[in-house]
Amino acid sequence: MTTTLAQAADADMIRRVEESFARQGALRTIGARLHSVTPGLVEIRLDFRPELGQQNGFLHAGMSTTIADTAGGYAAMSLFDAGEDVLTTELKLNLLAPAQGEYFIGRGRVIKSGRTLTICQIEVGAVREGKETLCAYGIITAMRIRA
Amino acid sequence: MTTTLAQAADADMIRRVEESFARQGALRTIGARLHSVTPGLVEIRLDFRPELGQQNGFLHAGMSTTIADTAGGYAAMSLFDAGEDVLTTELKLNLLAPAQGEYFIGRGRVIKSGRTLTICQIEVGAVREGKETLCAYGIITAMRIRA
Amino acid sequence: MTTTLAQAADADMIRRVEESFARQGALRTIGARLHSVTPGLVEIRLDFRPELGQQNGFLHAGMSTTIADTAGGYAAMSLFDAGEDVLTTELKLNLLAPAQGEYFIGRGRVIKSGRTLTICQIEVGAVREGKETLCAYGIITAMRIRA
Amino acid sequence: MTTTLAQAADADMIRRVEESFARQGALRTIGARLHSVTPGLVEIRLDFRPELGQQNGFLHAGMSTTIADTAGGYAAMSLFDAGEDVLTTELKLNLLAPAQGEYFIGRGRVIKSGRTLTICQIEVGAVREGKETLCAYGIITAMRIRA
Repeated sequence: MTTTLAQAADADMIRRVEESFARQGALRTIGARLHSVTPGLVEIRLDFRPELGQQNGFLHAGMSTTIADTAGGYAAMSLFDAGEDVLTTELKLNLLAPAQGEYFIGRGRVIKSGRTLTICQIEVGAVREGKETLCAYGIITAMRIRA
Repeated sequence: MTTTLAQAADADMIRRVEESFARQGALRTIGARLHSVTPGLVEIRLDFRPELGQQNGFLHAGMSTTIADTAGGYAAMSLFDAGEDVLTTELKLNLLAPAQGEYFIGRGRVIKSGRTLTICQIEVGAVREGKETLCAYGIITAMRIRA
Repeated sequence: MTTTLAQAADADMIRRVEESFARQGALRTIGARLHSVTPGLVEIRLDFRPELGQQNGFLHAGMSTTIADTAGGYAAMSLFDAGEDVLTTELKLNLLAPAQGEYFIGRGRVIKSGRTLTICQIEVGAVREGKETLCAYGIITAMRIRA
Repeated sequence: MTTTLAQAADADMIRRVEESFARQGALRTIGARLHSVTPGLVEIRLDFRPELGQQNGFLHAGMSTTIADTAGGYAAMSLFDAGEDVLTTELKLNLLAPAQGEYFIGRGRVIKSGRTLTICQIEVGAVREGKETLCAYGIITAMRIRA
């Protein structure tokens, strides 16, 4: 079986995203996992623990933001060249429903990849007894920087 | 020394904010502290640790959001009546500078307190060798709910 | 041919949206047209004229916002009951590309319809020689109010 | 009376803002006026006319956005060098109160002026019988581009 150049490029990109993810102390602290990386689309997962909750026991909005922002940032980076890093310049998140579930899925999807700025749609789904509910929906602007 | 009714009301409000803050597992996990509460203005502090960092060692944008959102939510709640709770419905944060410092200050300040929705300005300052740099600036919408 | 109850309800909803649209002086002034209304999805169109441009001759960001916000507001209202009106409480728009075209399409699509707040995705496409380019992408929060 | 270099630079900057403003067809169409320009702070005024209203006769949110965004963009540009132009990359506006007044004041104020991106606080005040009410509050990100 041969590997195409596109597959090799993707494998290299996924390795860069994984290495960057592994360096993020905050993501280790909360227990976030990089679930899938494809060009322009990244998914992060996070199991619920009371240690991540707010006053009513739901996932804290800051934790939802953390996984959504991270997914969006890596979705942007998945379309960058080697040697380029990503920085969020602004984020916006609407909290649609109480973040209540056994685990959470943060997704980032590139809407427009530009030379300087990349815009991503971000969202968080709460999974409870196998059923996902959209609990946060938003946008980030990510900036391309030379690493 | 006598206590005025306004002072007693404030003391009661501060106690409600403190009790709510203490129930937030996520804030304990990251080490956030409620620093000051006055009507319409709340300040949260967070010491830097590598466990809260992103890939370049700065504070993760999700952690900045966590303390800014929390400060904004309690600023809104500081103007609510007893028996009312607060819920963030949307947040927006612009990241102005790398969040690099020994500790961080999250501030929330009420711009408009409404019957249903309260709008707060939020910000995060990074303190390094005694000098504060504004590193995040934004807005939240908080909703008043019956607890 | 008979009309189902659902079709009759939709026809009534479309009439309410059309009547509301017709009362908006600002939309007449800029020349915006209500192009299509279906439950949860509304499209507004606007022909370009230099009188709507910014300093470089593209459509002014405020005009893009006007048609996007209007589409989002009516998308929210398309799921309301008779006697309920809509109010935008906050809007967010990312400008992805210069708004250059013969005409523009503002779209609003409901993401989450709630009792008090409805969240819509909004966007603006620029059409040039039959080809549409996404030039703005965002979110609004719309509030349900008793008319 | 002598003119300092700083005063001459400011006069030159104000002239560039005025020239750019004069080229904006959309602002002429709605009747917006450039009221004041100082480094980092710009004010736009707009008289109310039913032709700028929404369905209940208040100023349309898109018109509020137009003057707020324009004020923010020129506030950013007021700190640029000659030969540099400004482009809004994203805007966020919270609508705090019905925009009801004889005239409206759009203000833009620079929070952080960066090499590529400048962040401005924007707001709209409604003036009625000499009293101003804050009716919109937000943020824009403006990009510096070579003209």
